[in-house]
Amino acid sequence: MVKGKDGQEIPRVVIERLPRYYRYFVWLENQVEKISSKKLGELLGSSASQVRLDLSYFGDFGQQGYGYNTKKLKNELGKILGINHQSNFIIIGAGNIGRALVRYNAFYEAGFTIKGIFDIKPSLIGKEINGVKIYDFNKIDGFIKEQNIEIGIIAVPEEVANDVAKRLVECGIKGILNFAPIDLDLPPGFPFENIHLIDKMLALSFIVKNQT
Amino acid sequence: MVKGKDGQEIPRVVIERLPRYYRYFVWLENQVEKISSKKLGELLGSSASQVRLDLSYFGDFGQQGYGYNTKKLKNELGKILGINHQSNFIIIGAGNIGRALVRYNAFYEAGFTIKGIFDIKPSLIGKEINGVKIYDFNKIDGFIKEQNIEIGIIAVPEEVANDVAKRLVECGIKGILNFAPIDLDLPPGFPFENIHLIDKMLALSFIVKNQT
Repeated sequence: MVKGKDGQEIPRVVIERLPRYYRYFVWLENQVEKISSKKLGELLGSSASQVRLDLSYFGDFGQQGYGYNTKKLKNELGKILGINHQSNFIIIGAGNIGRALVRYNAFYEAGFTIKGIFDIKPSLIGKEINGVKIYDFNKIDGFIKEQNIEIGIIAVPEEVANDVAKRLVECGIKGILNFAPIDLDLPPGFPFENIHLIDKMLALSFIVKNQT
Repeated sequence: MVKGKDGQEIPRVVIERLPRYYRYFVWLENQVEKISSKKLGELLGSSASQVRLDLSYFGDFGQQGYGYNTKKLKNELGKILGINHQSNFIIIGAGNIGRALVRYNAFYEAGFTIKGIFDIKPSLIGKEINGVKIYDFNKIDGFIKEQNIEIGIIAVPEEVANDVAKRLVECGIKGILNFAPIDLDLPPGFPFENIHLIDKMLALSFIVKNQT
């Protein structure tokens, strides 16, 4: 569980909204000096009270009758999110998704550093993608702790995703971003996020077909 | 808005959970003949009443004291989601993400057919990726209607994502899956889903750093 500034548990949905608030303040900083919770809510498609409640978990940012100072909020939320505090990650699976992720510059801009790609295909091991080395997944022991890796991105086929997750957890990974189209079998409370592309496409397609 | 079987509005969060139910029934079909809402809730990390409420929007599937027939539910939910009803999509942006998506076989397995990739780089136009042709985005007029395209996947840089979205809407696209790290400026009620990779990484990293 993650505790807010007053020791209360921060709901996961609120944590998941935090990067979006940050994105908006990055933009707002160059538009206006301050913004009310009402105006911010309108921008985000949310209510003023939701905005105030969400942000209150992380600090006392707003001032009654003044609103939020956009520059201050951008800086504070950036600090809270650890932007510019280099955070190391690895990618498991040098397939199409894994290779695209290695080349995705937005990771580096947001303060994430990739330390390696892991695969089991002998023909790939030792090669480099975008300057990042491909290592043998069977020899991952030690790497995660030695290189201070926080996050492992799983971009392997569904059939082996749980085995990979299990191994990563055993080796001391702290969080998993999962691209495999399954829910991983992780220890209770273990930090993870899923990116389920097909679920998103199916939900979107359902809306498209049934919208009235 | 999307209406359920009794004419009530189906909440977006429920629609977004539907593909996950389908995934579980695909698996369950080969495990057990029937399952109670309680057991299903335990599998999904949800409650029995949540499961019953979610599924009730889409049909009368369960029987008191019997539970859900897994084979029937897999078939029914598959029909509702339009699995195996070919649904056409295009990708805008032949960069790293776009190229990885073209090669992502799970799209085809779920019933989605890619009809083309669009870009503006002259050096790319006319080439093929995985047998799919790259077209000039400036000549997209007509293509969407002629080829009966439902969904456009936006995989272009943030700076041009809104211009691309506007053009797609004008040309008759019915839904957008957006990979650009912004919230698109779409007409009210227009169907979309976002895949915000960096938001997910930042939220995960925040949890990893602050979990107690």
